[in-house]
Amino acid sequence: MSYENRTSDRLDATFAALADPTRRAILARLASGEASVNELAEPFSMSQPAISKHLKVLERAGLISRGLDAQRRPRRLEAKPLADASDWLERYRQFWEGNFQRLDALLAAMKTSESKTQQKKSMRKKR
Amino acid sequence: MSYENRTSDRLDATFAALADPTRRAILARLASGEASVNELAEPFSMSQPAISKHLKVLERAGLISRGLDAQRRPRRLEAKPLADASDWLERYRQFWEGNFQRLDALLAAMKTSESKTQQKKSMRKKR
Repeated sequence: MSYENRTSDRLDATFAALADPTRRAILARLASGEASVNELAEPFSMSQPAISKHLKVLERAGLISRGLDAQRRPRRLEAKPLADASDWLERYRQFWEGNFQRLDALLAAMKTSESKTQQKKSMRKKR
Repeated sequence: MSYENRTSDRLDATFAALADPTRRAILARLASGEASVNELAEPFSMSQPAISKHLKVLERAGLISRGLDAQRRPRRLEAKPLADASDWLERYRQFWEGNFQRLDALLAAMKTSESKTQQKKSMRKKR
């Protein structure tokens, strides 16, 4: 398998894993430090098996790994796949910033013509 | 539905749409300008219905829209969902940059101890 194909497969797995609010919340929690499955399940009104299923998806995507403590088996966040996904999106930054700049310019133009219309109206009132 | 829920649903749809190499390639093509379905299908060894299915996923996720030309019905890239997905990932930049910095420090430390070992070896040879 080529390097591009492997990178592409990994991006598929990363983006698929990110397409779920519970999994994103688990990653957000792990960004502040390791946590056991029980600790991760706590804030969700979800069964432990349901949480374990989400953890498996994250683990297979390489987004989390298991810490060294054999008893607690804490999960921890892995940085590389998040960085790769962000790098892919960053390539389009120029595009969307360009888009927003065009939108900003349009809004500014609309405001200017609006204030001119209001100026004309108030001038008409004064006459 | 709350603002958070709507944002979360949109992120779900965006990340799910990005979890496919053909769809990512279509977005990459559209970043350089509008394109018709035929033009988008060209670089792929895929049937037009298969491409249309991918376009539907991208359209439902709000990542693309249809241009004004009624005949060609060109697709164009929409910036907002990509920007939102990138913003979500950017929150973790500090985390992964921290991780890579720790790795860099480790590699630097390994190199230093390695070169010291080599220095000792070459000193031993000289004796």
